[in-house]
Amino acid sequence: MEGVTVQTLKVVRQTFTMLSEKRTQVVDITKQIRDIMLSADVKEGILLVNSLHTTCALFVNEFQGALVEDLKTMLDRLVPDDGAGYKHDDPRYSDCERGNASSHLRAALLGRSVALGISGGELSLGRFQSILFAELDGPRSRNIDIQIMGV
Amino acid sequence: MEGVTVQTLKVVRQTFTMLSEKRTQVVDITKQIRDIMLSADVKEGILLVNSLHTTCALFVNEFQGALVEDLKTMLDRLVPDDGAGYKHDDPRYSDCERGNASSHLRAALLGRSVALGISGGELSLGRFQSILFAELDGPRSRNIDIQIMGV
Amino acid sequence: MEGVTVQTLKVVRQTFTMLSEKRTQVVDITKQIRDIMLSADVKEGILLVNSLHTTCALFVNEFQGALVEDLKTMLDRLVPDDGAGYKHDDPRYSDCERGNASSHLRAALLGRSVALGISGGELSLGRFQSILFAELDGPRSRNIDIQIMGV
Repeated sequence: MEGVTVQTLKVVRQTFTMLSEKRTQVVDITKQIRDIMLSADVKEGILLVNSLHTTCALFVNEFQGALVEDLKTMLDRLVPDDGAGYKHDDPRYSDCERGNASSHLRAALLGRSVALGISGGELSLGRFQSILFAELDGPRSRNIDIQIMGV
Repeated sequence: MEGVTVQTLKVVRQTFTMLSEKRTQVVDITKQIRDIMLSADVKEGILLVNSLHTTCALFVNEFQGALVEDLKTMLDRLVPDDGAGYKHDDPRYSDCERGNASSHLRAALLGRSVALGISGGELSLGRFQSILFAELDGPRSRNIDIQIMGV
Repeated sequence: MEGVTVQTLKVVRQTFTMLSEKRTQVVDITKQIRDIMLSADVKEGILLVNSLHTTCALFVNEFQGALVEDLKTMLDRLVPDDGAGYKHDDPRYSDCERGNASSHLRAALLGRSVALGISGGELSLGRFQSILFAELDGPRSRNIDIQIMGV
């Protein structure tokens, strides 16, 4: 067991903006997150990645083109885009003009938060794990919030 | 990048109780959580919200009546209440008397934990983001656990 | 409200390995996690459990045999194993030889991370809550990463 006992704590917050290019799109943001961790100079601690939106998701999985296609197909099947009679998309019940109920519901299933350990100055990720951002109602500009706490 | 280096760490835990009024119900608990954060007087750090139960959920999304209806409809479709032959609800396999298998499974899909950054004395939430509690087997009394760590 | 103000912070990381025995299997790992927390000797703080893999999951729910069967049935229904035409399993689109698209997608639905408070030297878990590891592409050896931060 590795243990560290210290007297100075760092709390670092950084937000970065990304432009999605499609309605539904999965982007590997591991490098951006790692760069922010390195510049924060925290060697042991916890890193939190949160989307500041309600129609995109953050999660950890393998980043592979074929698998991303399978993920989109699954989302289309579990939470259809059209014909589902969403009240959020119906002007009689909602003032939302984007008609994006399916985007909200897909985000609720995938989650919008990733929490990782930082150990020895590295993110605690396995060999095939990437931090993935899923745009579910693009194209749009999105803010990703990173909170780092540690020593 | 905002950075803080300090020598005193605060760890604050608080539990609050809420009474749900329906079988399935979504409640915006952002204000309660923010009030607890303010009274903890932590300006930079991490806040964790956990349900202490297995048949309700916590997540972040927009709080809008029409969307909440769509969420309930989706849960009914993905994890039906009746006729699914759940073993958890069958006295031959289970001693559970509540017949609430669908509540457990829905909770597993939505998640029971929200982790947020605290920065500048505010929760790191986007404009349309609320912390939502989803009762999935009410009406009941529920305990929500908040853990705050920071400076 | 319980509050602690101190000057020494501990950050402890530990990884443990487990062998799954079936293709799909749910294991209660609460005891292993609690033992690691006890040996880390952190009384107030945050504990993070992450899988270092992309085809297994971690979540909190009740550990009961009948409910585990219901969970497997739900996963089979929402993300079928065969006949779904996954591109990840098709050599024309993918170099993955395991044919485990459904395992990746199920992991994305269940999540791979558990964040808990530590308070009074105990994990903040409710009476029926267990930390569950779900093997979704076994049998295999799996690494579970625990990050503890606190005082």
